[in-house]
Amino acid sequence: MEIYLDNAATTRTDPAVADLMVQIMTRDYGNAASLHRKGVEAERFSLKAREQIARTLKCEPKNIYFTSGGTESNNWAIINAAGSYVRSGKHLITTLVEHASVKNVMEALKEQGFEITYLPVDEYGRVSVEEVRKAVRPDTILVSVMAVNNEIGTREPVEEIGAMLSREFPQVLFHVDAIQAYGKYRMNPKRDHIDLLSVSAHKIHGPKGAGFLYVSDRVKLRPLIYGGGQQKGMRSGTENIPGEAGLGLAAELAYRNLDEKNEGMYRLKDRLREALEKTEGTRINGCTAREDSAPHILSCSFDKIRSEVLLHALEDRGIYVSSGSACSSSHPSLINTLSGIGLPPEMQDGTIRFSLSKDTTEEEIDETVKAVQEVLPYLRRFIRK
Amino acid sequence: MEIYLDNAATTRTDPAVADLMVQIMTRDYGNAASLHRKGVEAERFSLKAREQIARTLKCEPKNIYFTSGGTESNNWAIINAAGSYVRSGKHLITTLVEHASVKNVMEALKEQGFEITYLPVDEYGRVSVEEVRKAVRPDTILVSVMAVNNEIGTREPVEEIGAMLSREFPQVLFHVDAIQAYGKYRMNPKRDHIDLLSVSAHKIHGPKGAGFLYVSDRVKLRPLIYGGGQQKGMRSGTENIPGEAGLGLAAELAYRNLDEKNEGMYRLKDRLREALEKTEGTRINGCTAREDSAPHILSCSFDKIRSEVLLHALEDRGIYVSSGSACSSSHPSLINTLSGIGLPPEMQDGTIRFSLSKDTTEEEIDETVKAVQEVLPYLRRFIRK
Repeated sequence: MEIYLDNAATTRTDPAVADLMVQIMTRDYGNAASLHRKGVEAERFSLKAREQIARTLKCEPKNIYFTSGGTESNNWAIINAAGSYVRSGKHLITTLVEHASVKNVMEALKEQGFEITYLPVDEYGRVSVEEVRKAVRPDTILVSVMAVNNEIGTREPVEEIGAMLSREFPQVLFHVDAIQAYGKYRMNPKRDHIDLLSVSAHKIHGPKGAGFLYVSDRVKLRPLIYGGGQQKGMRSGTENIPGEAGLGLAAELAYRNLDEKNEGMYRLKDRLREALEKTEGTRINGCTAREDSAPHILSCSFDKIRSEVLLHALEDRGIYVSSGSACSSSHPSLINTLSGIGLPPEMQDGTIRFSLSKDTTEEEIDETVKAVQEVLPYLRRFIRK
Repeated sequence: MEIYLDNAATTRTDPAVADLMVQIMTRDYGNAASLHRKGVEAERFSLKAREQIARTLKCEPKNIYFTSGGTESNNWAIINAAGSYVRSGKHLITTLVEHASVKNVMEALKEQGFEITYLPVDEYGRVSVEEVRKAVRPDTILVSVMAVNNEIGTREPVEEIGAMLSREFPQVLFHVDAIQAYGKYRMNPKRDHIDLLSVSAHKIHGPKGAGFLYVSDRVKLRPLIYGGGQQKGMRSGTENIPGEAGLGLAAELAYRNLDEKNEGMYRLKDRLREALEKTEGTRINGCTAREDSAPHILSCSFDKIRSEVLLHALEDRGIYVSSGSACSSSHPSLINTLSGIGLPPEMQDGTIRFSLSKDTTEEEIDETVKAVQEVLPYLRRFIRK
């Protein structure tokens, strides 16, 4: 038996996506830059993927640039802002709870003389629009805020921040790391005044090694990677057509029956949360209200237990969860979301992230609850922190 | 019928590679950064791929860093040298016949105040070791030379350049773009004093969107892409395990029966070359001697014909070739290999690249020769340049 509750780390590739990729890899394997039919066919897959994605964001296909994944998208968005707008200023604003692929780019820019303002969040992990407003200076060139926090699932007010910025500081670019939000929320970057939006394929049952950056018309874009001039010269390198097509199909599938799938995940997440709340010595992190919390992420801190111990005890029963955020497990950053929301260090060490997918079942949730409740007293008794 | 002779642009993914990737995408889909079994299993695929590649280069697995492809590898190698060694100097040396993913990075560095020396090549496209030696200055930090030219197949003297540099200018880093050479030649970067070596998976029947950079122990490495700290913090982003595993398997397969496969390609390339030489108004570009020319690339210029016209006429018969280099077809650079070897502009316009794979057959070559010889007189008569 295998219960995979680590879908915020990565998801199973949809078999239909894998099938399409195999077809392209072994039959329609042309280089999109080739002038002959096999190249033209390859390019058609790329165009179709761009259209599939554009439909989900109500934008034009030309606003979509394929990348090697969410991390490259975040790097490119921020480095581009710094490079193209340095003459307007050297100040960037972000939050204390961003993913490492935002935070560590900011830190690299800091070494190059840029100034970074890290905004705090409230106990639920939310940044306030007012704090963003107050942080903007005449030399601010970019605000970067994630749409959904990867560690605790809290939804950030990116629509309100976009509206505020466009009203009061229209010259400031707005970047949204939508890696945990895309495929769960209907997003409309144009309406919400988002200039740059990062997405990863493997979080939505698409392939690893693929992602995209939405870029609004007004952004002065420059390449992060130079070469043969693919993607209007902005992202060179032979196009990863299987990856792009896989991402396009995964995007289309993600938004099919969206409300129904989200409702299913919310129901199971609530079920899991309520059971964990009743368990002794637990604390749910982030918001419990559906409107403020993503359908797939539930963070729970366990008293008097180290998360890795609990993680491996659950693994023994075929249940896969994450301690904190998988992405930073090999290199934890000092200030993470859990300290950002004021969780005491000893509770941070005991935090487990359960993350669901559209395929998660009620039986799996009940099995997980049962396992947690069985192993907890035993572990707390014999394995002292 | 389909005769694919554009293998220098991209190759068909080996079905065994595609099968492995599907298994990983749909069953062993964990995030290598996850602490549970699914993460550990994923990491094992990555370690195995690193070992498979290291064996082909007689290096340690720790010297291999996975990237999104050859273009990222070339960008990273050169930008890293510029960033990590700027205090030693701002002079870089390369050749006039490099791929756009080297040349355009050099041009970007030029805008940042670096000085670039572009070395000329002889009529066969070869740079001389002596020219490299003379170009080195006290402030030179990097020499970058491709191992095999992608447009005409000429082999550059990278072993000799490496030996000369290590003897006379040991402080200078040496980067080799091995994208067209890897899988055709046995390479040994340590023996040949190569510090950085770029490889792409999709040129060796591996997946698109995957590649690696070999980095010698002495290189001061810094990330091009920042984030969650994957690959020792040097290349962040969720590891593309299907891509890495696919690349590892493709690398192992590429070096299996290498001599036999190369001998087969050389035989067919010679057969094609001899037939084209007998055809009226043709000129073979690059070297004909096997020791100076890669087994899979043959460049031929046709008098009084535009290459695109010939390309589409062959396409009509199911034969896929390239005009010049596919990578730059959408954005031709001003100085390319063909002008570098002194080919007159009108012959450059009539140049076709035929590129073979291990799967190319004698029948396909004969069919191609027949097609060229049939369409040429017709095209030359009716479609004037």
